Amino acid sequence: MKPRTVYFFGNGRADGDRRMRDLLGGKGANLAEMTNLGLPVPSGFTITTEVCHLFLARAGRYPKGLDKEVAAAMRCMEETMGARFGDGDRPLLVSVRSGAPVSLPGMMDTVLNLGLNDRTVEGLARASGNGRFAWDSYRRFVQMYGDVVMGLKPASKEEVDPFEAILHRAKAEKGVAEDTGLAEKDLRGLVAAFKEEIARRTGKRFPEDPEEQLWNAIGAVFRSWNNPRAIAYRRLNGIRGDLGTAVNVVAMVYGNLGEDSATGVAFTRDPATGEPVLYGEYLRNAQGEDVVAGTRTPRPIAELRREMPACHAELERIRGILERHYREMQDVEFTIQQGRLWMLQCRTGKRTGFAAVRIAVDMVEEGLVTKEESLARVDPESLNQYLRPVFDVEEKRKAIAAGKLLAKGLNAGPGAASGKVVFHAEDAEAWAGRGETVILARTETSPEDIRGMAAAAGIVTVRGGMTSHAALVGRQMGKVCVVGCGALEIDLPSRTMRAGTRAIREGDWVSLDGTTGEVIAGKVETRPSEVLEVLLERCRPAGRSETYGRFAKLMRWADAARRLRVRANADQPDQAATAVAFGAEGIGLCRTEHMFFGPGKIGPMREMILAEDAEGRRRALAKLLPLQRADFAGIFRAMGPRPVTVRTLDPPLHEFLPNEPKAIAEVAAEAGITPERVAARARALHEGNPMLGFRGCRLGIVFPEITEMQARALFEAACDVAAEKVAVRPEIMVPLVGTRREFDLQAAILRRVAEEVFREKGRRVPYLVGTMIEVPRAALAAASIAEAAEFFSFGTNDLTQTAIGLSRDDAGTFLPRYVEAEIYERDPFVSIDRDGVGRLMRIAVEEGRSARPDLKVGICGEHGGDPPSIAFCEELGLAYVSCSPFRLPIARLAAAQAALAGKGRARRAEAASDAKAARKGRRPKARRRAPRRAGAQRRKEPIPAGT
Amino acid sequence: MKPRTVYFFGNGRADGDRRMRDLLGGKGANLAEMTNLGLPVPSGFTITTEVCHLFLARAGRYPKGLDKEVAAAMRCMEETMGARFGDGDRPLLVSVRSGAPVSLPGMMDTVLNLGLNDRTVEGLARASGNGRFAWDSYRRFVQMYGDVVMGLKPASKEEVDPFEAILHRAKAEKGVAEDTGLAEKDLRGLVAAFKEEIARRTGKRFPEDPEEQLWNAIGAVFRSWNNPRAIAYRRLNGIRGDLGTAVNVVAMVYGNLGEDSATGVAFTRDPATGEPVLYGEYLRNAQGEDVVAGTRTPRPIAELRREMPACHAELERIRGILERHYREMQDVEFTIQQGRLWMLQCRTGKRTGFAAVRIAVDMVEEGLVTKEESLARVDPESLNQYLRPVFDVEEKRKAIAAGKLLAKGLNAGPGAASGKVVFHAEDAEAWAGRGETVILARTETSPEDIRGMAAAAGIVTVRGGMTSHAALVGRQMGKVCVVGCGALEIDLPSRTMRAGTRAIREGDWVSLDGTTGEVIAGKVETRPSEVLEVLLERCRPAGRSETYGRFAKLMRWADAARRLRVRANADQPDQAATAVAFGAEGIGLCRTEHMFFGPGKIGPMREMILAEDAEGRRRALAKLLPLQRADFAGIFRAMGPRPVTVRTLDPPLHEFLPNEPKAIAEVAAEAGITPERVAARARALHEGNPMLGFRGCRLGIVFPEITEMQARALFEAACDVAAEKVAVRPEIMVPLVGTRREFDLQAAILRRVAEEVFREKGRRVPYLVGTMIEVPRAALAAASIAEAAEFFSFGTNDLTQTAIGLSRDDAGTFLPRYVEAEIYERDPFVSIDRDGVGRLMRIAVEEGRSARPDLKVGICGEHGGDPPSIAFCEELGLAYVSCSPFRLPIARLAAAQAALAGKGRARRAEAASDAKAARKGRRPKARRRAPRRAGAQRRKEPIPAGT
Repeated sequence: MKPRTVYFFGNGRADGDRRMRDLLGGKGANLAEMTNLGLPVPSGFTITTEVCHLFLARAGRYPKGLDKEVAAAMRCMEETMGARFGDGDRPLLVSVRSGAPVSLPGMMDTVLNLGLNDRTVEGLARASGNGRFAWDSYRRFVQMYGDVVMGLKPASKEEVDPFEAILHRAKAEKGVAEDTGLAEKDLRGLVAAFKEEIARRTGKRFPEDPEEQLWNAIGAVFRSWNNPRAIAYRRLNGIRGDLGTAVNVVAMVYGNLGEDSATGVAFTRDPATGEPVLYGEYLRNAQGEDVVAGTRTPRPIAELRREMPACHAELERIRGILERHYREMQDVEFTIQQGRLWMLQCRTGKRTGFAAVRIAVDMVEEGLVTKEESLARVDPESLNQYLRPVFDVEEKRKAIAAGKLLAKGLNAGPGAASGKVVFHAEDAEAWAGRGETVILARTETSPEDIRGMAAAAGIVTVRGGMTSHAALVGRQMGKVCVVGCGALEIDLPSRTMRAGTRAIREGDWVSLDGTTGEVIAGKVETRPSEVLEVLLERCRPAGRSETYGRFAKLMRWADAARRLRVRANADQPDQAATAVAFGAEGIGLCRTEHMFFGPGKIGPMREMILAEDAEGRRRALAKLLPLQRADFAGIFRAMGPRPVTVRTLDPPLHEFLPNEPKAIAEVAAEAGITPERVAARARALHEGNPMLGFRGCRLGIVFPEITEMQARALFEAACDVAAEKVAVRPEIMVPLVGTRREFDLQAAILRRVAEEVFREKGRRVPYLVGTMIEVPRAALAAASIAEAAEFFSFGTNDLTQTAIGLSRDDAGTFLPRYVEAEIYERDPFVSIDRDGVGRLMRIAVEEGRSARPDLKVGICGEHGGDPPSIAFCEELGLAYVSCSPFRLPIARLAAAQAALAGKGRARRAEAASDAKAARKGRRPKARRRAPRRAGAQRRKEPIPAGT
Repeated sequence: MKPRTVYFFGNGRADGDRRMRDLLGGKGANLAEMTNLGLPVPSGFTITTEVCHLFLARAGRYPKGLDKEVAAAMRCMEETMGARFGDGDRPLLVSVRSGAPVSLPGMMDTVLNLGLNDRTVEGLARASGNGRFAWDSYRRFVQMYGDVVMGLKPASKEEVDPFEAILHRAKAEKGVAEDTGLAEKDLRGLVAAFKEEIARRTGKRFPEDPEEQLWNAIGAVFRSWNNPRAIAYRRLNGIRGDLGTAVNVVAMVYGNLGEDSATGVAFTRDPATGEPVLYGEYLRNAQGEDVVAGTRTPRPIAELRREMPACHAELERIRGILERHYREMQDVEFTIQQGRLWMLQCRTGKRTGFAAVRIAVDMVEEGLVTKEESLARVDPESLNQYLRPVFDVEEKRKAIAAGKLLAKGLNAGPGAASGKVVFHAEDAEAWAGRGETVILARTETSPEDIRGMAAAAGIVTVRGGMTSHAALVGRQMGKVCVVGCGALEIDLPSRTMRAGTRAIREGDWVSLDGTTGEVIAGKVETRPSEVLEVLLERCRPAGRSETYGRFAKLMRWADAARRLRVRANADQPDQAATAVAFGAEGIGLCRTEHMFFGPGKIGPMREMILAEDAEGRRRALAKLLPLQRADFAGIFRAMGPRPVTVRTLDPPLHEFLPNEPKAIAEVAAEAGITPERVAARARALHEGNPMLGFRGCRLGIVFPEITEMQARALFEAACDVAAEKVAVRPEIMVPLVGTRREFDLQAAILRRVAEEVFREKGRRVPYLVGTMIEVPRAALAAASIAEAAEFFSFGTNDLTQTAIGLSRDDAGTFLPRYVEAEIYERDPFVSIDRDGVGRLMRIAVEEGRSARPDLKVGICGEHGGDPPSIAFCEELGLAYVSCSPFRLPIARLAAAQAALAGKGRARRAEAASDAKAARKGRRPKARRRAPRRAGAQRRKEPIPAGT
């Protein structure tokens, strides 16, 4: 039997339903569903996406038998609507619309009022009792048909639509400004003029035959799947090109048949706040396009209650039916034709982050959805809105309208910040020290800028991507951060930043919207995030904070649902405290080198680097020891019984030395050596490719005394804090390991020093020694390394750089072109490249566990805070993800969603296996617990109280 | 039954044989073998390496039952030798020597004359009729025992051996210079003094009991396996520490019993030339240590014929027996005791490259070995000696003795060169242009130096390793090259090079020995390689060249034996011609960027880089097109019907721009733009990690017009040369591909341009489009990439850098420490890191072939010329290896050895399976051809005439 190609709906019954989205598109599936629900939907039918594939693949030929199915469906429509297609008396008119499985709003084509011709227009005039309406509808149809089906729509927006030109002339001749100023006879003249224009331009006549109109329109809509706008949109939104669109042919209803007609859009809840009320707007005596065009101002839906109480009541009733049925906030289009309400579309409504959380929490409490379903519906990224200061929307709009937008960069650190701009990290520190709010603007940032970054309210850079140093450190600090503003140019000597012709001087106010990437001249007022204030205990949640309450509730549900533990990347005691406030269950990455940039630490660090021999290095390290020990102790206290993963020194040493002559002279003076010697050492440490150079465990292998000092600082701090009755749990991590032997050499030092310290302190603390997996070789040698290492932590930033051979900081030159050319679906530094980097991770997990079944595996690269990457970590059965503190809520929700998706997969697999067993006549096996992924690590540690 | 721990030999029968090298050590196995051959070997026994393991593992306890086995073997020795251990009349004296499965020359300990005490010394005096001899032997024994067994040997060479000090005093007191000046009574006094010294220093008495002496000596020799010298040697030579040593206890024979006694060493062929004559030297009335000590000058073995004709005849007879039996050149030690010849050791003799080839060829012609055995015995690296100019050995020795050695670096490009030193590439070109022979000395080289390098006779650099730019390009050009001479310091402003206090000015003569890494001040005369002269047709092989004839013969045998094809890396027509002369069967890597450094090419290349837009780039590329086309045509003509693999533009563009203000100004003037613009463009192209930056296919994806030009130049050249009736076979290779899509984008351009050119030229040429596999992601995505790519070529340099996260050029800081710490067995840039990089290669081969069974896979990284890496390529079943032209003979022989080893493995596997079948009572299957490795690519193309 041939598959069905046409799905009818009307009169309370439909061939399709909402599960058939792939075949019928979103619009078609929901029209069928609403019909089945008994809602007032105009009759119609959907031609499937399968037909689209065949049609496009066969250069515009329809599959055999489609004509018969369409004809049958048209007969059903005629019957249901009591009108006949092409009938001179009561003509059935239809819309022909696209409807893909995924929404491509406005990208494809639509033809309305189809079925009108010189004969049926008179029937429409009679049936509606409104000749002007009928001819206006005809005029619109001929124009739309000419544009869409006959190809007269200009390719670019600069060109004028030929029909609009004629319309414009007609109005000018008659001396009216609005279309409404044209009378029926003017419209008749326009129809004739439009048809002439079509004949003149295409050499073809406008077809009077409704059947011909219908088939040509269907073809045009199918073809519009591959128009340039649709292709560009799909590319931009990562939508597959092989989905295809369905075509919906639906009986026309009219909202412009008089004051008892109207058209509008509505949401079943407020999409901005989530408040559970009907929300929307409508226009009386108007068509849908009038609402969209914005020529008339629509009224709030509340007014409909007064103007058309019956229709409003009906809409409220339908709102209830839809919400109960879909158990989700819906976005609907409706038309009221002469007092009768018709539903033209429904779909899941878009919403803000605030609304998403409120709707999720409310719907659970209303008993509409389970907690699990609710969790799955909140986009984790949208939680950012809860944590960031915000600009007053109106203020910002005014500033931009006044031409103050300087540049738009990448939204690397969300939130809003205003401050006086400075161009040097030291200035940021100094100015902030005297109470100024500053924005640090740099061409790019380096580890030397860290203290300035910490002092600034916001950071903006000219270069760099979403995972550049500025973005990384900014996010970790929770700073508002905009990076890669290529339109800005910073001139250090004149302390000026240029954006085109506009110059911003040091001290001028600048405002950054880190959520959108906008850089605005002047001061736009901000207000702090309420949730953040509560979390950081700057204010009490006391009563007033419903916003906080909902956020906290969702987080509790997420924590209960997830399997993955979440940790934070934090290097300082205050960051650790913030991380705990955001729900961190441990520290996944403490970068010890960041500690060396603190006050009084860079000096001994440089002394160590400049030392001539191991003895000199030891002397300098002895000065660093107490400083680093104090930092560790602070972190251990802040984290309490939560595990703290500390990475030994990682970056190339040249990062600690200055480059500029003045700074070199200062360092030389401090160290009591010549500037030439400092410069020579910096030159000697210079590398062609420092990413692949003398760094990571290579430092500790060549200079074991560094690892010794770090181990001593760490274990002494651990013992000291343990003496305060805190159950510290250090986990020490060796970076950039590629072979078992590298790990062994460093682990031997760590374990030896641990024993020495334990003996000296008369106290032992439990600890683990593990390694980063951040070069491909480590993943490939995982079995051997896991024999010695007690845990793995994926450093996916470097693993991505090495696996792809792609420098994160240098990729700006060509990565935009790469995303455009669809070489990577997503920026591999944002979302894990599953086929490449992900495969290495899978090898490492599987082979590592083959050697050590209880190997603890986590991730501490930036990907640890990216929801799709977290889903992949769940699939791999990792123990935890670690991310910057401000992304913890996102990670907690994403982990919950990943766990629920995993359960869903398991259930579906089970169902499929049951079905198979049933087909074979066997009884399904007794239900067991949903199977877990092989080797997935269960959470053995209790989760500390969240939020 | 307990395993045997002691293996006796003597009187024509031995428990062991030469196959038992692992158990008996090399010395023990060969002593047994010689005994079985009926040769005159003093009786003795070997304690196995198994005992060594047990002894060392159990802190010096011997396994149970060893004492009984040793006692039994001692009784057999006594019987065979007609003497008794500890007997006062005819005492049996023994040597106790180490003997590991792999030779550790002189690293472990030995005790001679064991069994002497105050009583047996008199017996020895009587038996030998020579009291002085007996006491001299006793004196030596006590000293050796004290040093080795009782631990008085100083740890460092700076300290004086206490016994030597006493001996020195004794001679001084007596006023004699030589030991021979001491009489029997002096020696008696020395023995007493030595014993006193032992007692004084150790608090223990010298043991008079021969049994006690024996067991202590055995223990000391076992322990010497782990002495620091032995450990260091093993580390340096990559010898496993768990092999252990055997102990050989052998009856003493004496070459110092008068003028009818002698001791010597001999080779069964001349180890320097390979001439098939007995070669060696001897000393009359001397012990082995006298030969080693060098205090007396030994005589050539030919004189033995005159002095001791019977012994010489016996030695010649034994030479024949050994050569027929071992079928290999042997290195023997012998002693003549009172006219009777004793063989003390035999082992495979070391030889020069010239000797290795001559012996290999001669032995085949003598019917001693098969061609295959012969091929397996020549170290491929030693073939280098055939291709390089050489210094006169005496001349060089004199220069070094005169203190002219400036530095010793890495022997990156073998051979000898003398010339006037210059410090700029342009100077090298200019000076060479006016007929000077120059040595180019640079701190390090860059692609800009290539023309200067080509003009120089030799290259020396201060920085860089064996695979630095200088080493790489130098080898490819066949230049004498010494890199990494850290002792040199080049001062460009003063055009001076310093080595310590010595200054070498521009124009001074310098000589480089690229085979040893020596840099010598002044001019040492060189003469060219004869083989090279013939290969490059600078002279005819006519008659005179036996050397060439043997080399050519071995190469022919190798070509017949190998499966892997060999190609060369060559970028210019003249290099291609050289490659063909060296036996290249194709070009595996033609780096198109090297062409852009040629005269007239760097200008348009820079213009292209400095262009503001695609149009400007196209204009510049149009100038490059005819130049590149001419290069391609020259290469195609040189290579004839051999495949030529061309890589599209690969290096970061900044490499083509100058850095120094003067050069920038010149380029700016040429391009008609401001120097600021040039500098700005260079800055914009600057990258933090250019290795991972904007290079490889990324260039061609962002600037498709570059790929278009290169494709056009290539296909136009191919068509033009094909029109000359040459069956050109271009293979175009896309670099740095990580995803299928990158390849597709570039392949689409290449294939489109090919079709365009074929249409224009009215002629098609067959071609392939493939890709480099040089980042881990490419290996991991091999299945997908192979669906589109027609061949793979492993770029193992970059694959190593990215897989390990290790920059080749920056690794100098820590790689020495890494090799010392045994982190990598061999430098991974020299030999493929099998576990890491090799695993990626295996994945790529297996998965690539799963998608495209006939996928051609080769290697073009530097590893393609490294014998262990070639063996790995054979295991993977690659189609070809490609290396620099001068390494082709090495690659051809290594490929033959790898193929033979593969056959050997297959035969052994077959034998094992037959044995298994036999045990199960089945008949082995009918013999088929030796199985090939699954999927190994066979050579389908005929090999062009070799050598």
